[in-house]
Amino acid sequence: MRDLYHEELDGLSDKLVEMTRLVRSAMARAVTALLDADLRLSEEVISADEHVNKIDAEIEETVFDLMARQQPVAGDLRTLITALQMSKDLERMGDLAVHIAKTARRRHPDSAVPPELQAVVLEMGQIAERMIAKTGSVIAARDVEMGLELDEDDNAMDRLHRKLFDILLSPKWKHGVEPAVDITLAGRYFERFADHAVHVAENVVYMVTGQRPAEIIDP
Amino acid sequence: MRDLYHEELDGLSDKLVEMTRLVRSAMARAVTALLDADLRLSEEVISADEHVNKIDAEIEETVFDLMARQQPVAGDLRTLITALQMSKDLERMGDLAVHIAKTARRRHPDSAVPPELQAVVLEMGQIAERMIAKTGSVIAARDVEMGLELDEDDNAMDRLHRKLFDILLSPKWKHGVEPAVDITLAGRYFERFADHAVHVAENVVYMVTGQRPAEIIDP
Repeated sequence: MRDLYHEELDGLSDKLVEMTRLVRSAMARAVTALLDADLRLSEEVISADEHVNKIDAEIEETVFDLMARQQPVAGDLRTLITALQMSKDLERMGDLAVHIAKTARRRHPDSAVPPELQAVVLEMGQIAERMIAKTGSVIAARDVEMGLELDEDDNAMDRLHRKLFDILLSPKWKHGVEPAVDITLAGRYFERFADHAVHVAENVVYMVTGQRPAEIIDP
Repeated sequence: MRDLYHEELDGLSDKLVEMTRLVRSAMARAVTALLDADLRLSEEVISADEHVNKIDAEIEETVFDLMARQQPVAGDLRTLITALQMSKDLERMGDLAVHIAKTARRRHPDSAVPPELQAVVLEMGQIAERMIAKTGSVIAARDVEMGLELDEDDNAMDRLHRKLFDILLSPKWKHGVEPAVDITLAGRYFERFADHAVHVAENVVYMVTGQRPAEIIDP
């Protein structure tokens, strides 16, 4: 049987997984809100973020408390510090979903996404969702291999991000400056979301192996 | 006389201050590069960022090492964890200066900033520089009062950010989509830079007082 201390460490992992579940739901709804100009959905995403922030604060409190009471060493110490960093990344990913929802809300009842960009934005949203889903599995299963896979998703996101700019900056673009500004920001939010997912996965790899991913792939 | 452990704690603070000095220099040069379309200066900023990343990695190593060896409690524990978080914020601020420098480089020999936006961008750059300079003082002197002041600078940055969009989206805008995209991204970089400065200052307040700024201002 595990002692209370190790149960509390497991509890941290559960809370991180719960954050990924909430962020995934937020991102999925934010993308739909953006593509369908759905005001109700954007409001939902914006108000649900409080819950993510609350779990982040709880994790911070638990980490400080466990560190002070248990004086952990080596592996457990690494687990606590990386949990804190993952929590900050996930909290930020929640914020980015909110930013996307706010972009949708700002242009409502119009859509912020012109027709020729709908497919790219949809695909960026799908990759973002896949990445946060994988992040949850990586944390729950301490799955180093899947953690390293997230780099490929990030590359796919970067390619779509470039495609977005190609369309925006093509001579055929006829929507003017305002939609271009919205899409530039939304593209940036997706790209940062992917960066944070990679960062969380890197921290899982570090937590489990004690090595940074670069040392594993290219020692 | 202080013991070795407390000398190492002081060393962390020195390294954080050194990071603020490097980031301040990077931001100052990035803004000049952006306004003057100065390619050499942008290259300098881009290559100098390695130094900031190196100090961040050193701080992380020292924090893990001190935690494992010294099993710090209460105040010292808080100092170590907040040092780690500040280091991450400062590292990210260095990246944002690099992003601004890259915007300048991408448009060279043209300027990425149309004439009617030069004044606003210059002012955003000055506020960014002032904020990172203050951040350095706040860390060096553990100055809670100045730390709380950074919120006002952040508000000034937000006002300029809105002004930037007002100009971009005005019917008088005649520069088309490409400069609008550049300026949208640059504006976002400045705004995030300011957010990170506030976050560092908040962590200093927390380190010194054990309270989050919101609890001090609005207990």
